[in-house]
Amino acid sequence: MSLKGKDIISALQFTREEVEYLFRLAEKLRKEIDEKGILDYAKGKIMVTAFFEPSTRTKLSFQFAMKRLGGEVIDFEVTTSSLAKGETDIDTLRIIDGYNPDVIVLRQKKPHFPEQIAPMIKAPIINGGDGWNEHPTQALLDVYTIWREFGYVDGLTIGIMGDLKYGRTPSSLSYLLSKFKDITIYYIAPQPLQIRDEVVEKIEGKVTYYKVEKLEEVIDKLDVLYVTRLQKERLPDPSMYEKLKGIYKVDLQVLAKAKKIPVIMHPLPRTWELDVSVDNLRQARYFEQAQNGMYIRAALLKEVLGV
Amino acid sequence: MSLKGKDIISALQFTREEVEYLFRLAEKLRKEIDEKGILDYAKGKIMVTAFFEPSTRTKLSFQFAMKRLGGEVIDFEVTTSSLAKGETDIDTLRIIDGYNPDVIVLRQKKPHFPEQIAPMIKAPIINGGDGWNEHPTQALLDVYTIWREFGYVDGLTIGIMGDLKYGRTPSSLSYLLSKFKDITIYYIAPQPLQIRDEVVEKIEGKVTYYKVEKLEEVIDKLDVLYVTRLQKERLPDPSMYEKLKGIYKVDLQVLAKAKKIPVIMHPLPRTWELDVSVDNLRQARYFEQAQNGMYIRAALLKEVLGV
Amino acid sequence: MSLKGKDIISALQFTREEVEYLFRLAEKLRKEIDEKGILDYAKGKIMVTAFFEPSTRTKLSFQFAMKRLGGEVIDFEVTTSSLAKGETDIDTLRIIDGYNPDVIVLRQKKPHFPEQIAPMIKAPIINGGDGWNEHPTQALLDVYTIWREFGYVDGLTIGIMGDLKYGRTPSSLSYLLSKFKDITIYYIAPQPLQIRDEVVEKIEGKVTYYKVEKLEEVIDKLDVLYVTRLQKERLPDPSMYEKLKGIYKVDLQVLAKAKKIPVIMHPLPRTWELDVSVDNLRQARYFEQAQNGMYIRAALLKEVLGV
Repeated sequence: MSLKGKDIISALQFTREEVEYLFRLAEKLRKEIDEKGILDYAKGKIMVTAFFEPSTRTKLSFQFAMKRLGGEVIDFEVTTSSLAKGETDIDTLRIIDGYNPDVIVLRQKKPHFPEQIAPMIKAPIINGGDGWNEHPTQALLDVYTIWREFGYVDGLTIGIMGDLKYGRTPSSLSYLLSKFKDITIYYIAPQPLQIRDEVVEKIEGKVTYYKVEKLEEVIDKLDVLYVTRLQKERLPDPSMYEKLKGIYKVDLQVLAKAKKIPVIMHPLPRTWELDVSVDNLRQARYFEQAQNGMYIRAALLKEVLGV
Repeated sequence: MSLKGKDIISALQFTREEVEYLFRLAEKLRKEIDEKGILDYAKGKIMVTAFFEPSTRTKLSFQFAMKRLGGEVIDFEVTTSSLAKGETDIDTLRIIDGYNPDVIVLRQKKPHFPEQIAPMIKAPIINGGDGWNEHPTQALLDVYTIWREFGYVDGLTIGIMGDLKYGRTPSSLSYLLSKFKDITIYYIAPQPLQIRDEVVEKIEGKVTYYKVEKLEEVIDKLDVLYVTRLQKERLPDPSMYEKLKGIYKVDLQVLAKAKKIPVIMHPLPRTWELDVSVDNLRQARYFEQAQNGMYIRAALLKEVLGV
Repeated sequence: MSLKGKDIISALQFTREEVEYLFRLAEKLRKEIDEKGILDYAKGKIMVTAFFEPSTRTKLSFQFAMKRLGGEVIDFEVTTSSLAKGETDIDTLRIIDGYNPDVIVLRQKKPHFPEQIAPMIKAPIINGGDGWNEHPTQALLDVYTIWREFGYVDGLTIGIMGDLKYGRTPSSLSYLLSKFKDITIYYIAPQPLQIRDEVVEKIEGKVTYYKVEKLEEVIDKLDVLYVTRLQKERLPDPSMYEKLKGIYKVDLQVLAKAKKIPVIMHPLPRTWELDVSVDNLRQARYFEQAQNGMYIRAALLKEVLGV
């Protein structure tokens, strides 16, 4: 297996072996980073972050990961850029590519943009989120968190709850889970926010899945409850937000009804759907999840850079 | 004395010994930096600048200080961040903290936010300004500038002029001056902008202070005149700005009336309150003051990082 | 010849020898960079990018150039800065200068601002574009691209087309071409966008030039066709943009009429004036041109830093 020089576009592209290799590498890097702060692997290498949509976690997490590997980071800032002058994102990326970065982390509003642009770009592209479509490195850190928590992934039952339609983390998470055995997914969402058909079509026959409306129906079956935010910025009509706001929520009261509280995850940022009262539960894993992102992205960068 | 791993929240927290130690360390680092450009002390360390309010001097000054110490800087940019998605600053900082930075420099609109968040954050927090409340590293560079100018601080008479109510530099400066002996402070401001009671309560008995309305009344007594800008962005009512604009001003004409022109300082940025005609006076020290900021912040970072 | 510590303000300031030296140095650095990724020349040096106007290529290209030389980059971001507080650009630059950067790359809206500020600033200033006036490093990369393409510059015929009035690249390109022998320039533009008198006055007697309205009239004479974008943001009246939009355009249809298609260049970003259909022509050199920018800027930085 080698990811050297490869574009990372979709969670579907990984083999189970690659995923597990990355998990073990992340553990190894975690130890080395915790010991030394900054390592030497990526010395002399440059990563560009090109985020055409706002981000905290993903961009910062990649920047930390690359710095921890000893590499350099150059951020292409969209706000102070020539986009104001009317340039297309394709021209922008071709120009960045001309500076010969060793890897480009790309976030873009347009679904499937990374796979369209990748053949025109020499540098490996890592998809840091393409609209509602995918966010493969988020899926890596999500499943890495599950793997660290349970010691395995096979056989687990995961509830994915919230805005499954306009979110990109539910699709990528589903795809990556489908690489494992005997996975059951409950898609928990009100009808207008249920998982897209094209997502379940791709995991058909590999994962057992159910669509349900209410958390109460299934909470006792879950090993993991993965909550997601209503993607305000992707709703076709802004008035939808006010109608759907608060339609689902996880708080202590809701969880108190469960026989056994599952591991609680969230890709963050959160708004009203995950109450701060949950933060102190030992099952709350979302801040740890964000932290895991740095290590798994360091592992991915190391492999893609081939260092 | 050790500041290693400590949060730097308020100018009140320092002992006189710590302050003088930092001044001497800043002098030492100044020589080393001027000679070598970039040093090795903070190699392998990462500082995050998390500025939830705009800044030039403070952020840039910390970035230079950390780079000069040989460390790495990661900037969390609020504009391109998830704040647009409705995330709280607390969640944001907990996520940043999860990436294990060695120090976080924080600026936030909300007074006392740094002391509220610090216990939740593993990394040492340096308060880079919390609304109208405090700006302890500005006070360090202010008093460092005075110390360099006179060779001592004890016994000096300092006029602090301008918007003392909504500014954070007058409070932190007062607190840090209160660590020295025989200090006299004149608070020079029109009534609606006079120093807050909570500030003078904290220096009561340690500093001799007077509130006056006009510079003319006291200029001949001053060793230092510290001018501050009207904090347009913090006024409760925007119409106040137009009313108060120009109500105080330092220019050559005003200074010509003094028997002896005091050392002129300003935290910058300035607007109309300090005329450019003053820039060429040998008493004008505000650009030097900004420069001193880099060295004293390097000293503080070195101590907080324990390197 | 030595550019060490010099301000780089105008393309007119270079001697032919300096320009050719920089071209050869860029070739040398290209080989070293392509081999090693990051070099050691600028170790311990800090470059500040201070862009008071948006930019992609120039800022990114300088950042890459400095990192490739092994130096450090600190970006002064105008959006998150004190400009919101009403500070002047002069104060801002004096403060930055106080932090003793080794070089400042400056972009500013106001024409001739760099030459006005340079005497007040200790660090060497590189003009990264001053309004409609000049963009000397763009001219360096433009002529460097021509030199690489033909192996020489003397005797060539260059068409400069588009918005020659409000653009800064046509002026700097003309100035730098005037350092070579037997150059012919055709200024191709509709009347309201023709080249400014002050530009041609400066190359009078050194370059043979003609002003024409239509590309068709001269295309067969051109070795190089340099296309520029309509500078929307500099037009005195926004309604002008709608009137002039599309008044000139280069696409395959236009080029098909030429006996011999010239080398096509563009400073980028492009909007409607250069059709993507042209991109696949072997004569299209604009992405290569952008790439050359990194190497020639690395060469310039190396010389200005004296490393």
